[in-house]
Order: sequence, then structure tokens, then C-alpha cells
Amino acid sequence: MALDMRVDAEHALLDGVYDRLFPLLRSITGEGIEASLRIMAEHMPLEIFGVASGTQVFDWEVPPQWNCRAGVLTGPEGEVVCDMAVSNLQVVNYSEGIDIELPLEDLQRHLHSLSHLPDAVPYVTSYYNRTWGFCLSHAQRQGLKPGTYRARIDADFSAGRVPLAHTFLEGDSEREILLSSYLCHPSLANNELSGPLVLLGLYNRIKAWPRRRHRFRFVLNPETIGSLCYLHLHGDHLRDKLDAGLVLTCLGGPGSLTYKSSRRESAPSDRLAQHWQARGEPLRLRPFTPTSGSDERQFCSPGFNLPVGQFARCAYGEYEGYHNSLDTKAFMTIEALVKSIDEIEAYLKELDTSGPWRNLAPYGEPQLGRRGLYPNINSAATWAASSDDVFDGRVILERILTVLNYSDGDHDLIAIADKAGCAVRDLLPVVNRLEEGGLLEVKT
Amino acid sequence: MALDMRVDAEHALLDGVYDRLFPLLRSITGEGIEASLRIMAEHMPLEIFGVASGTQVFDWEVPPQWNCRAGVLTGPEGEVVCDMAVSNLQVVNYSEGIDIELPLEDLQRHLHSLSHLPDAVPYVTSYYNRTWGFCLSHAQRQGLKPGTYRARIDADFSAGRVPLAHTFLEGDSEREILLSSYLCHPSLANNELSGPLVLLGLYNRIKAWPRRRHRFRFVLNPETIGSLCYLHLHGDHLRDKLDAGLVLTCLGGPGSLTYKSSRRESAPSDRLAQHWQARGEPLRLRPFTPTSGSDERQFCSPGFNLPVGQFARCAYGEYEGYHNSLDTKAFMTIEALVKSIDEIEAYLKELDTSGPWRNLAPYGEPQLGRRGLYPNINSAATWAASSDDVFDGRVILERILTVLNYSDGDHDLIAIADKAGCAVRDLLPVVNRLEEGGLLEVKT
Amino acid sequence: MALDMRVDAEHALLDGVYDRLFPLLRSITGEGIEASLRIMAEHMPLEIFGVASGTQVFDWEVPPQWNCRAGVLTGPEGEVVCDMAVSNLQVVNYSEGIDIELPLEDLQRHLHSLSHLPDAVPYVTSYYNRTWGFCLSHAQRQGLKPGTYRARIDADFSAGRVPLAHTFLEGDSEREILLSSYLCHPSLANNELSGPLVLLGLYNRIKAWPRRRHRFRFVLNPETIGSLCYLHLHGDHLRDKLDAGLVLTCLGGPGSLTYKSSRRESAPSDRLAQHWQARGEPLRLRPFTPTSGSDERQFCSPGFNLPVGQFARCAYGEYEGYHNSLDTKAFMTIEALVKSIDEIEAYLKELDTSGPWRNLAPYGEPQLGRRGLYPNINSAATWAASSDDVFDGRVILERILTVLNYSDGDHDLIAIADKAGCAVRDLLPVVNRLEEGGLLEVKT
Repeated sequence: MALDMRVDAEHALLDGVYDRLFPLLRSITGEGIEASLRIMAEHMPLEIFGVASGTQVFDWEVPPQWNCRAGVLTGPEGEVVCDMAVSNLQVVNYSEGIDIELPLEDLQRHLHSLSHLPDAVPYVTSYYNRTWGFCLSHAQRQGLKPGTYRARIDADFSAGRVPLAHTFLEGDSEREILLSSYLCHPSLANNELSGPLVLLGLYNRIKAWPRRRHRFRFVLNPETIGSLCYLHLHGDHLRDKLDAGLVLTCLGGPGSLTYKSSRRESAPSDRLAQHWQARGEPLRLRPFTPTSGSDERQFCSPGFNLPVGQFARCAYGEYEGYHNSLDTKAFMTIEALVKSIDEIEAYLKELDTSGPWRNLAPYGEPQLGRRGLYPNINSAATWAASSDDVFDGRVILERILTVLNYSDGDHDLIAIADKAGCAVRDLLPVVNRLEEGGLLEVKT
Repeated sequence: MALDMRVDAEHALLDGVYDRLFPLLRSITGEGIEASLRIMAEHMPLEIFGVASGTQVFDWEVPPQWNCRAGVLTGPEGEVVCDMAVSNLQVVNYSEGIDIELPLEDLQRHLHSLSHLPDAVPYVTSYYNRTWGFCLSHAQRQGLKPGTYRARIDADFSAGRVPLAHTFLEGDSEREILLSSYLCHPSLANNELSGPLVLLGLYNRIKAWPRRRHRFRFVLNPETIGSLCYLHLHGDHLRDKLDAGLVLTCLGGPGSLTYKSSRRESAPSDRLAQHWQARGEPLRLRPFTPTSGSDERQFCSPGFNLPVGQFARCAYGEYEGYHNSLDTKAFMTIEALVKSIDEIEAYLKELDTSGPWRNLAPYGEPQLGRRGLYPNINSAATWAASSDDVFDGRVILERILTVLNYSDGDHDLIAIADKAGCAVRDLLPVVNRLEEGGLLEVKT
Repeated sequence: MALDMRVDAEHALLDGVYDRLFPLLRSITGEGIEASLRIMAEHMPLEIFGVASGTQVFDWEVPPQWNCRAGVLTGPEGEVVCDMAVSNLQVVNYSEGIDIELPLEDLQRHLHSLSHLPDAVPYVTSYYNRTWGFCLSHAQRQGLKPGTYRARIDADFSAGRVPLAHTFLEGDSEREILLSSYLCHPSLANNELSGPLVLLGLYNRIKAWPRRRHRFRFVLNPETIGSLCYLHLHGDHLRDKLDAGLVLTCLGGPGSLTYKSSRRESAPSDRLAQHWQARGEPLRLRPFTPTSGSDERQFCSPGFNLPVGQFARCAYGEYEGYHNSLDTKAFMTIEALVKSIDEIEAYLKELDTSGPWRNLAPYGEPQLGRRGLYPNINSAATWAASSDDVFDGRVILERILTVLNYSDGDHDLIAIADKAGCAVRDLLPVVNRLEEGGLLEVKT
């Protein structure tokens, strides 16, 4: 069957891209993230660009590029303790170059392990505070013998750039929906290859829609400094054009989809999530907070206050493998990615058509019969939301009258669905038919 | 006693007018509704006018006038099956002229009955879709013998008008309160002779008020197309002048008075109904909906969005006799009409005086003593809301201070009554005295 | 210890001033209130001024000055029944001069006592309605023998003034916080020497603050007519500059501190009180009402609608001694005054710094590390709210990010504390450090 073939192809694509991306040593700059973006660009037409080291970006200065070629820690008897070639988590991300011998007691403050997870290697970064270090399991660390160690990291900093990438799917309008994720983490699966892979899946899905009412903007960057750089270049445009934005992160674990509200708390995407939760859809709401999260913290800073929420499943801090070597495909599954793609696509379909709409015959009720819009059993196929719907002319008529009455430019389709006591998706065929019949248009 | 005489006279008037109106074959146009309006005009000074057939009214075209002189269906042996002269429900309203013989099996699609109410004759209309038909009880229909039937309807369509009627009671201000009902239904009692009769009763009551702060507008029309035509002629004026409007329908059955909110949900009349319900008055609130109801659907269309609610007792769809021959005086009683008139009159008294008011000495508290407005036992009669009130100077003083403090032009008397923890009617004598004392005026 | 010495000095000051003020015969005009203001002015730099008798003040005319030199009621056998020299409550405040002999039965309507409190002498005034009278205990009144009494009140009215007094503590801004109390009551302790004494205590406390962000305005006047006169002179200025105001009354009895909301119900001081109550601080909220209270009724009249609330402990009407001779130091304690001063000072510290603030690096998150603002264990002392706080870097960082994100000029510190789930006082060191670091400024 065609559908199964499409599903299989999507699964295979995600699996293949994952396997190529996972081993690379990524950071917020440098060859690892550049190569990763090029791999993504093989599957979606990404434009890759960047902001040069040293550029002032709001309150920040873009850091130099980190070039790390090797990192090995050897013990008193020459045994290899850590080796970046074995796992790129074993070197502190953004370590400076070093080649030094030192006793174990002096080495300890350069070692990082997790006492509560003795078999996991932690993920540690130090982007803006120059230092060096190695990460290892607590079990291994406990077994280190006294003596002289050699720490050798072949790394330097050079003028470079923070790389950024984006692409677009055009729609009927210049109004935009943003989808954004980040690709700066090294060998970590759920946090964060899941977000970029779901972004890729959504790109392919939305590209196949027969119609898009919004322009869709797909963005990949390194976290925090990347979204700051992106806002530096495109923030004014987004402030002008953005109807909704979604940061994608941690979308490959177990549990139901969750939505973190934008700072506005009542942006259309926030209200759609409230609508889903209120109707018992498998979506859990989280309030906005500026204290933890991902790039929505930058998009929702008070100077921008963009309507950007965030989707996650099992998010940062909620699973054992968060920011350590347990975050692999054993935890993050391709099946969960596909489920996330399914759910977010359905969500975006509703968001894209949510209006607000404007009734073009607002004085009294329009005469539906004359226009062939009075629902009857012969028109079931065009009015029903899906082939599974039981067609009920009375119910359809109530939805028509409710959409017409409240399409005053102030109520969007989410507000109208709440008035009508149905799902937004139940109103989509109504809106489409009324638009074809010349009775509705999107408020501009 | 004078009061009893007045009550008896009102009851007799309503009863007499009902008995003259009930038998007439009314529709949205034609002699039946024209004659009915003339009967109403004998008892209140209605101006009768209309909008001509063919006129474009918003999204609609005014239909031709229906002239129906007779309608008889006879059976195979010449027996009379249906006869409009026996009951004017027996011909589908707006049937085209026909004189045809046809076998029972072909006739069936022109017959209308109610299987769940086998003894009732349904009320069926087809204003905008040309057809013809007869209505009969399901019991009778079941007994029809095979054979050839003769269907004869002596009807035609001609250039005419949708008739409209209105009258006014002037008040202190140009601001208006609208009372509207519809007179297009043939021999049906609760729905809809009750609304026009309550309108007549309210006209007489309000005419007797010593003072009206609003101009009262009383409107009778045929449902839907009539209110559209009325808005075509007077909609701009209403948008400019209307403080409140009430559609009157189904007011003669059992059960307590109910109020359907206007689309605004917080218009003064909506908030007064909320206030009544919150205080345990016998009034049940219904939310606004554009999907079922009467002419408020047109008044509350998004282009007008007028502050028009609706009063009913046992409403459309809530009683067995709705839109069939069981809707007679056996269900609708004159006593219930009088009760509706009593309750709506009390409601209108509060609405008429609800302001918002403006304190003319808003800097500090005014000195009440100097103005003779400090309540004391000697002034009980003028301050107490009714002769039944126990006069309590402290309570009156609290009401005075509350009215003065919140009469800032933003809080109307309904909001102030909620602040004061009393009924709006408890504040009416306070407002009247403070107005006389030069401390309050209606915000214009 | 220094703190104990300061506490002892404050207690002694309040006690001493109380003992000098209590015996004086005060009224809304005249030597008693003038002398009382001069005593207060020995301890805080009050400017004393006034509004002349006969001046039109809004809806009022300033009354003449009342000069009462003696008041004695003697019985049939020459025995002294009432004597103002024994208790100044024994003459009706603002009695006209009289020297008359009259039988007991005619005297009765000039006598005032409390049947439900047979041992208390009531406090009675008649400022605007010329009359005379004596007040005595109900027990004494019951024992009066029939016969001829001599009522002699040596009083007259002369052109004078309603006296007013104020002083200021300057702050960083022209925006003001008003503290107001009234000094017109004669020998009554809780109502009302407690308010002026708490005002004095707060003056000394706030004077000692290292920094004031607002200008503090301290006002003493006679109740009602005094605040009307004060508004007559300074109302326009207050309307322009006032951020918050607090009337101080009945602050020396038992029970917890209570706050009566301003008419706005959502002024910063109202929301701070809601915040305190929600967090379980010992503060009970009372809604605004124009029907009972003190000078906030004038400040909150609709023409001014100033953001003025009121602090009290056991307030008017809530204690047996209200407006009678039982209101003495036996009920009102200096300890309770000090407790009121402590609590209100803490409240004012939060109010003074509540902003709203404006983030000066609002585009993205500011880079805290570069500025030395990233909290770490070494900076515990400067970040923690008090020396008792357990320093937790993660908690401090969350508060920093929350303050920065919501300091958009719309959210004040009270709203932000609610978002952060902490007390306003927990955010004060955060705000101070971020201001020093150049990241925040008060919105002007």
C-alpha cells in the first residue's frame, strides 16, 4: 500500500540520517556542526550561513570557532583513560589545547563524572570560560590509581562563525509559522538529534500538503548563541510576520507530547494547545518559564516576545540519560519520532487554518440555500471532516452558523471551536466550503 | 378595587385579541399577516409599512407575496383528507398552486406527518424552495387507502411586500430599548401568538409609567425575513441608538422565565439577567447561540452585533406541541402571558434606569446633610424602595454612598447593585432622590 | 545592643508623645488639634498650615473654629454631673455655648449614653448641625434625680481654619508614597492616637533607610474635612505623582494587621496585600467600600480615585471601646504600635522597590557571566535576601532570569514574584544587583 510505503520511507530516512549524525563531534561552532548541517541539507534545501566570530550580537559577542582534533588522557602506566576518538563526550566541549603531565590529585578538578549514575559519562561544556577537562564514568574515576597523568587535547580557537541554516515552504500569505531546532550537541540522541529529525520529517510532510495558508520557516542552529544570532539577522522580520513558532526538542522519548506555552500565554498556538488538552487530546501543557528550556527563552525575551512555544516529549531533566552517555537510540526511538511528527503535523494543520476569518456577508445570516451551502445528505462528503465522520446535517448547519456568526475578525477558529463545542479539525471542512462559497476570507 | 379591575381588563384584552388572531392563515407575506397587524393596530398605534418583493436585503431577495385561497386533498372515494378551511396547518405554508390527480404512492412525498406524535398535524413551510404539500396526523395518514387522490391548492404568487409594524413610547432620552416579536405563524398559540400579545401588554404597561428614561420601540414583523427587512430600513439607527433589545417568543407556557443572552454576553440586559439569576429571582439564563432561536440571530449577526437578548418561557423545541397542532390555548394560557408581562415589566423598569450615572460632585463625598439628603426616619417614605420595605437609615446611607462613589460613568446601576449587595430595584429610589438633589445625572 | 537601644528609644518616644496628647480636647478645628500638631512637630519636621473657615472646598464649606473653654452640667442639688475638665468626652464635640436651667425631662434629649455599655461615656460630635449636649455613662444617667439642672457650656465659634500638617522624605524619584492619619479625636487611644503615633514611628524608620526610591509624604489632618481640605490644596499634585497611599488608623489593638483595598482594587499596594495574604503573611484583606472607613473614602472618591488603601488592626466597630471612654491605653498598647510599625515598614520596603522595572538588555538573555552576575557560591552574601537565607545558586539564577524576562515595564515586582513563586522581598537583592550591573532601571 502507498501509505505503508510512505511510512517505511520516512522511517528509513530518519534512521539513516540519525546514524550518520550521531558519531560527529558537534559544538556551537566548528566542523562537526557544519558537517551535520550539510548532511541535513542533502534532505531538505537548507541555506547555510552564519555570523562571524567577534560580532556583537545583542548583549553577547560571537565566540571564536573551536577546532578540536584529538583528546586523550593517559594514566601512570600509559593506559588510555579517556579518548575522544572512542566517545566525543569524553572531552569537555570547548576545551582549550593542553599537553601537560600532572598528578591525579591536581587532575581531579578537570575531571567530570556523575556519582548518582556511576556508569554514565556526562556531557559538559564551557563555551565562555576558558578551561579544559575530561569526562568519564564515576565507576572508572573511582578506580583511577595515584600517579602522574598526561592530559593532551589537540585543540585551538580561530576566527570562524556560528553557523545557521534555514529553508522555507511558501504559502498563500506572507504570515509565517516558524519551526526551529538545534544541532550543537555531540553524541546525544533525544537531546538533541530528535528535534532536527522531527524538523526534517515535518518539512517533508508539510511540503506535501495541497495548500498552505502560511509561509513555513524551518530553522536549524546551535542552541542559545545560534538563536541569538538568528534573531540578530531575522528578528525584526519575525516580529513583523510571525503568527506562531515552535521549538522542537527532546521528541524521541516515551510519554505523551507536551507543549510549553509562549511567554504570551494566549498566542494562537498556546490557545490551540489549551484546546487540545481541554478536549482530552494526548497533549500535556507546560506554562512558560524563562528559567529552563531551549531557544524559546531567546525568542520570548521581552524585547522580542515572539509567539513561540516548544514541543517535547520526555524533556530535559525528566529522564536519566539527560546530558550523558545514556542518551542513545536505546532511549530515543525512530517510532517515537514518527509519532511526534504525526501529532505535530495534525497540530500545524489546525494552526495553519485557524484564521481569524472574516464573514463577507455579516449583516444578518447569509442565505445558504441560494448558494448551495445548505448541508444535505448529498453533500455529506464535502462537509464531513473525514471519511469516518457520521454525517449529520443538523450538526453541520450548527457549525456553519457558528463559524459565520463569530468570524468577525476577532475570534479565530480556536475560539469558535470552543464556542461550537467541537474540535478545530471539525471546522476545517466548514471553513473551506464557506471560503469557496465566497462567504469567508482570512483577515489580513 | 382599581388594581383588580385593571388586571381583569388586561386579561380580557389579551383573550379577545388571541381569539381573533388564532384562526387566521398567516405567513411571512400576504393577507393573513396584514390583517393580523391591523387587528394589533386597533390596540396600539402601530405604523404598518413594508419592503417590496424583489428588493435586495443584505444577502437575501424579498420573496413574492403568497396568496392562498383554498387547499383541499380528497381521497379515492371523494372523501376530504385535508382542508385548509378546517385547519390552516393542513397546507404546507407557501405551497404553489396545484390541481392534480395522482396515486397515493406518488402523493406520499407531498405529505407531512409526525410518527412520534400520531395525533398532531405538523406545521411545515417552504418559503424559498417552490413545492406544495399537505400536513396531516400520522394516524390519519396510516389509514389512507390506495387509489387516486386529488390535490388542489388555489394559490399564487404576486408582487407584494414583507409587512412590518412599529410604534414608540418616547422617553427622556433618544437612547432606545427595543421590544420585538413576530406574527407570521398561522394557528399556533405559544409559538407564536404569545410574543405579540406580551408585546401588546407591555406597551400598555410602559405607557402608564410616570417616567421613561429611554425611548421604547415596539416592533412586529414576520420572523427572519422580517427582521432582516427591519434592519435593512432601521439597522443603522439601531446601531447608533440602541441600549438594549429583547425578542419576545414562546411566553405563554409553563415554567419559569428564561433569558437568552445577546451575542455580546455582557450587554446591560445580559448583566441584568445574570444579576437576577445570581440573586435567586425566577429567571434562568441561556447563553447566546447563533444556531437556534428567533430574530435575535439577525440582530446579533456580526455586522450588527446589537445588544439584543430574548425572553421565553417554555421555548421552541422544549414542548411537545412545538410547530404542530397541539400548540393551542390548552398549552398556552392567558395567565402565563400576564405573568410574563409582570416579570418583563419589572425587568424593564430596572433596565430603563440602569444608567450609567455620573456623580456631579465627584471630588470627595458630597455633603448630604446640607442638601437634605441624609436619610432619617422622617424621610423613610421617599427612600424606601416600596411600601413593604423596612426603613433602615444605615442601610439607605450605605446605598447612597455606594451609588455616589461608583457613579463614575463606567459602572452602571447593575454593577453598583452587585457592589452594594442588593437588588437593582433597591437602588431605584436612591438614584431618583440623588438625581432630584442635583448629585446624579445619566451619562450621555 | 544597638538594636535593643533603638527599640527602647522608639517605645519611649511613642509612650511619651501619647501621654502628652491623650488629655487634650481635640476637634476638627481649634486649639486642641493645633497644640497636638505642634507636639507632633517637635518630633518630625511638620509644616503646619490650614484652610480658612468659610472657604468652599468641593461640596463643603470649611466650618468656623470651635472654641470650648468649659462644660459643666450640675444637678438639682448643685452636684456636678458632667465636667469637661474631668473628661473631655463629657461635652458633645462642637456644642454651641449655653447657660440654661431646665428640668430633667427636657434635658434628656441633650444627653447621650450607651445602654449596652452602661459604664462607658460615648464620644459624640455634631460638627455641621448646631446643638449642644453632654455625654455620660448609662449607669450614671439612670441614677439622675428629677429636678432642675443647669447646663453651662462656655463655647463659641470664630473665624479660624482647619489645620493641616505634612512633611517629606525625599527619594530617587518624584513619584510619591503617601502616609496619612488624623488627629481630631479627643481622649481616645486606638481611634485615634494610634495612627498618628505609627506615622511618627514610620517617619523615623524610613528616614533611616539607606535609599528611598519614592518621595514619602506624611500627612496629619482632622478626619474627613481635613482630607477634603488637603485634596483641595494638593489633590491635583497627588493625582499626578502618587504611586501608593495608606491611611493609618486603629493600629494599637490586638489582632493581625488588616489592609483595606483602594477603590481600584488592583493598585500596586492592593496587589502587594493580596500577595502577602496569598503567601500566608499575617495580613488580612478587606475589600474597598465607600460606606465605612476613614479618609480613604475621600482619597478614593470618583473624581480622585487615588491608589490609597488603609491599614488597621482591630478597626472601627470591631471593638467594644470604639468611640467611647473604654478606648484607652488599657486597650491600645505601645507594643502593638511597634508591631504595626514593624509590619508596615516591611510592607513599604517592598512597595518602594516594586517598580515596574525595565530590562535594559531585552533582546535575548543578557550574558550574566561577562558581567560578574552569574550567581556562585562566592557571591552568596550579595545575592541572598538576608543573612538567614540558605544560598542556592540555582534558585538565585531562576529569580534573575524571571526578573529579567518580565521586566518589560508592564509587570511590576509583585507580579514577577507571583510568577517566580517567591516573596517580593526575596527579589529585592536580585533587583538591586541587576540595577548595579546596568541591566535594570525603574520605568519612568
